[in-house]
Amino acid sequence: MTGEPALKLPAFDPDVVSETNFTSYPEPHRAANQMRHNRRLGDYAGLRNFGVNLTRIVPGGQSSYRHAHSRQDEFIFVLEGEVVLQTNDGEQILKPGMCAGFPAGCGDAHRFVNRSVADARLLVIGDRSTDDEISYPDVDMHARLAPDGAYRFSTKSGEPL
Amino acid sequence: MTGEPALKLPAFDPDVVSETNFTSYPEPHRAANQMRHNRRLGDYAGLRNFGVNLTRIVPGGQSSYRHAHSRQDEFIFVLEGEVVLQTNDGEQILKPGMCAGFPAGCGDAHRFVNRSVADARLLVIGDRSTDDEISYPDVDMHARLAPDGAYRFSTKSGEPL
Repeated sequence: MTGEPALKLPAFDPDVVSETNFTSYPEPHRAANQMRHNRRLGDYAGLRNFGVNLTRIVPGGQSSYRHAHSRQDEFIFVLEGEVVLQTNDGEQILKPGMCAGFPAGCGDAHRFVNRSVADARLLVIGDRSTDDEISYPDVDMHARLAPDGAYRFSTKSGEPL
Repeated sequence: MTGEPALKLPAFDPDVVSETNFTSYPEPHRAANQMRHNRRLGDYAGLRNFGVNLTRIVPGGQSSYRHAHSRQDEFIFVLEGEVVLQTNDGEQILKPGMCAGFPAGCGDAHRFVNRSVADARLLVIGDRSTDDEISYPDVDMHARLAPDGAYRFSTKSGEPL
């Protein structure tokens, strides 16, 4: 009991949304991506044009493999903890209140890793533009967004994964 | 001097983005909307598919007039302070860490007002879907998104404002 009345939609406490460490990555790329847990806040609110995830990265985890989108913009805001942002140009440490944006087609592949001893929490926003492709410079993987809204993964040479 | 190295794009501290209380509202609706100050974080990062604003509402201010979008989704996350969310169904108080989402076409007109004695800070995300219209149930105003990306304001009966 906190004495606070519960919020009603369209407002809510992110804690009411269940966390999942599901990843759409195919094998052998799954395990490295399961040390981050997402709450799909945008989906919970019924949004369809963009996604808003509250992502908790545990120590040693990553937000994703380093990647760049062809058609979709991405934005992150650090809520809690400390993350290392890795891009084509190297590394930077981001603390709470800091942010980063990745315009569609910029080619700057990025990920966030947690090298600290505490959980880190990020708000991660991305739109759902069609015909998106995702490039992964550090692993032999490539993704194309299919008309059904799901990504199809392959090797860089086009073999399905 | 904080001893922290300055961030480089694509990462940044929101404080490097200038604040503005500009409003696109026409007269006589401007003054009520100038007690909130926006930092356009998404624009600063070069994003085009959606906007991310860090909005500071001073005591007595509002985020906007109560409104509903026809084609664009909207999401807010409270970073600091306390705001009152007003919707078709009434009022709720949102504290830091709480959020709300407004799906396109839901018809639930909303705004955030600051009745506290301290500034409130929100992250406000909205996509840029074309052909959007904005309904304002509490004032004689209506907006249509033009192909140039700017809204055209009129009275409800269609007289230009």
